[in-house]
Parts: sequence; structure tokens; C-alpha cells
Amino acid sequence: MLPDIKNKRVLDLGCGFGEHCKRFIDCGAKKVVGIDISEKMLEVARNENSDPNIIYINMPMEKIAELNEQFDIVVSSLAFHYVEDFEGVVRDIHNMLDTEGIFIFSQENPLCTCHSGGNRWTRDELGNKIHLNLADYGIEGERESVWFVNNVKKYHRTFSTIINTLINAGFSIERMIEPLPTDEILEQYPDYKDLFHKPDFLLLRVKK
Amino acid sequence: MLPDIKNKRVLDLGCGFGEHCKRFIDCGAKKVVGIDISEKMLEVARNENSDPNIIYINMPMEKIAELNEQFDIVVSSLAFHYVEDFEGVVRDIHNMLDTEGIFIFSQENPLCTCHSGGNRWTRDELGNKIHLNLADYGIEGERESVWFVNNVKKYHRTFSTIINTLINAGFSIERMIEPLPTDEILEQYPDYKDLFHKPDFLLLRVKK
Repeated sequence: MLPDIKNKRVLDLGCGFGEHCKRFIDCGAKKVVGIDISEKMLEVARNENSDPNIIYINMPMEKIAELNEQFDIVVSSLAFHYVEDFEGVVRDIHNMLDTEGIFIFSQENPLCTCHSGGNRWTRDELGNKIHLNLADYGIEGERESVWFVNNVKKYHRTFSTIINTLINAGFSIERMIEPLPTDEILEQYPDYKDLFHKPDFLLLRVKK
Repeated sequence: MLPDIKNKRVLDLGCGFGEHCKRFIDCGAKKVVGIDISEKMLEVARNENSDPNIIYINMPMEKIAELNEQFDIVVSSLAFHYVEDFEGVVRDIHNMLDTEGIFIFSQENPLCTCHSGGNRWTRDELGNKIHLNLADYGIEGERESVWFVNNVKKYHRTFSTIINTLINAGFSIERMIEPLPTDEILEQYPDYKDLFHKPDFLLLRVKK
């Protein structure tokens, strides 16, 4: 999914501990800006993944226009399902990218983000997951969930809303992936077979 | 979803009784070719929706390259989930379209086509659908189902396979819709509320 990163200016939205930022520099990126809403995570990033060409900034995605900078590549790993104003952030990303700039992101799959309560799975008597209890896929918006702490807010959008929002902002869709385990992975982690019922993630690469 | 059809050459894949073909002519299309695998349906089309500028041809979608003709618009309504070689047909459509030609189609939503047996829904004690029993979404390929007759073969593809196949053939994605009922429709047909659990259809408009 990642294009050649050599000599590129990269913006990482929701960079967390900065592992990806460091990797981009190791792969030849000219400059990397990592933003995250968690100052605690950025402290770790500055300690463990620092580099003269990486800047870590404590900032919510909704404010990136304030960076007032141009980039060649914008990446984001598993953060967009926490963003309420997807449309606004995508528009800002489009503005901040140079011509032919690439935006690559992953988020929870819409088959996950739609979950609005109750048991996510139906299991057989042995506890095996036999199907996903899918409801409210067409009802977009806020969902409350538990992720380390209670009341983490996520936002559900359908596949078509995600695609159309990117297109409306001026992007062209280049690739979409819903990762599934290979046979080798399944041999090592047999529980991953449940991903064939519901892929956990969605990856998209789009171009300005 | 439909572009201006005036003076355009239109190909309708799986035209059935030809209602759409006739409508295209009424909207100013220069020429319409409707193909269908069912000669019985085409007989009705020729009787009820004929026009000097419509040609109805009994032909499976997999053979359209044999038409050896160029079109401005290719449309298809609820037929692609019966097509095994989606990739091949999409490539043929791309070849048959003039520059900037438009391909618009609907098919069953992947949340429907993945169904591989058993109860599709879990219901409460009153019979209301409370969630879709979603399984095998990530397992693509043939499904057997009942539609008027037994053993109708359908083919399941994930959202990402559909999108990537179109892109790989050279199309750019313009719009994707998973139709949901409006409040007015819901008032008239309350059962359509179940579409918020699982949209029945998927529509895509792509451009050469």
C-alpha cells in the first residue's frame, strides 16, 4: 500500500508512540510530522523514536489545517473511527497534499464500527463464533464502546459514505483492502478464522 | 446516478423486459443495445418495449466483446451477482466504452451475497428482525440460492474486491450508494426499516 517514501514529506495522523514515523525516516523520508491527541504517547515517541527530521505535535486531527504545511504523503493508522468530522479532516488532508499526493489510512472495518450494543457474536455450544450479529449498519454516527477505559466514542460510517467523502474531497480511489489471514497466519493463529466472518480493518489508498 | 443520456449510445447488460432500454430512448439516447441471457424476457421486451433504435440480443454478459461496438454508457441493473467472471466482464466493458464513458450498475449488496445458508436473520419472539446473521463475508465465490427456482447460482465478492476490480480495469470510482429508505418511504413501508441492518443493494458509477 505504501508508495516510495524516499525524500518525501510525511504527515502521520494519530502517530501514537511514533514507530511508523521512525520507520518512514529509516526508509528515506525527508521530513515527518507526527500528531497525536495523547501527550503521554508523544512523550514516549520523543524518547523512543526521535530523529532530527521528526517533529511530534500534540494536536487533534481536526486542527491539522493549523500546521499550514504541505506534504507528499499523509498516513493514519487505526485512528479515523475516532474522528467525528471525517469530511472536514479529509478536506484538510486534500488541501495539505501536493499534486499527486497520497493519503493512506486504516480504520476499523464498517462491519465493526456499526456495533451498537449487545453480543457482537453468536456462538455455538463450544463457544465458537458462528456468525456476527450485524445490526444498524445503515445508521451512521456515534457509538460508545469500551477500549481500556469506558465510554470511548467511535463513529460509524458505511463503506459508501467513506468512499464518497474521499471522492467529494477530490481524491481518486487507488486501492481498498479488508485484510484477511493467509493460510500460514491461520496455522499460527487459528482464531483468526473469525476474520472471514468479519474483517477487523479497512485500508484505503487514495490520490490527489 | 445517471448522466445525461441525450445522443448517447447505451448498452444495457441484463436488460430483462427492456423497460430501462425504452426509458433511455425516451430520454434522448441515440441508440440502445439490450442484452439478456433469457430469450423469454427478450420476447417480452421486443413486444412491449420496442423502438427502431433499440436492439435486443440474446447473449450472456461474458460474451459482450463479440458485439464489437463502442458505447458512451454501459448500465446494468441487479445482474452482476450472477456473473462469475466479474473481472473479465469489467475489462470488456472498459474496452467497449469510449473515452470518459460511464459504467453504472447495481447488484445485491455484499452483505446479502455472502449468505451461505441457514437463517439469514435472528428474530425476536414477535418475529421482528433484530440482527442479520452475518457469516463468511470474507469467503468469496459461488453461493446457491432460491429465486423462483432452486439452485440459482450467485457469486459473492467483498466491497474491496468489487472496488479494486473496477480500478484495476482502468475505471475511476465516481459514486457508491447503498440505498436506505427515507422517512417517507418508511411511513409507507414500515418493514423497510430492516434495510438499516442490511442494505439490499449496492450501486456504483465509474468512469473510463
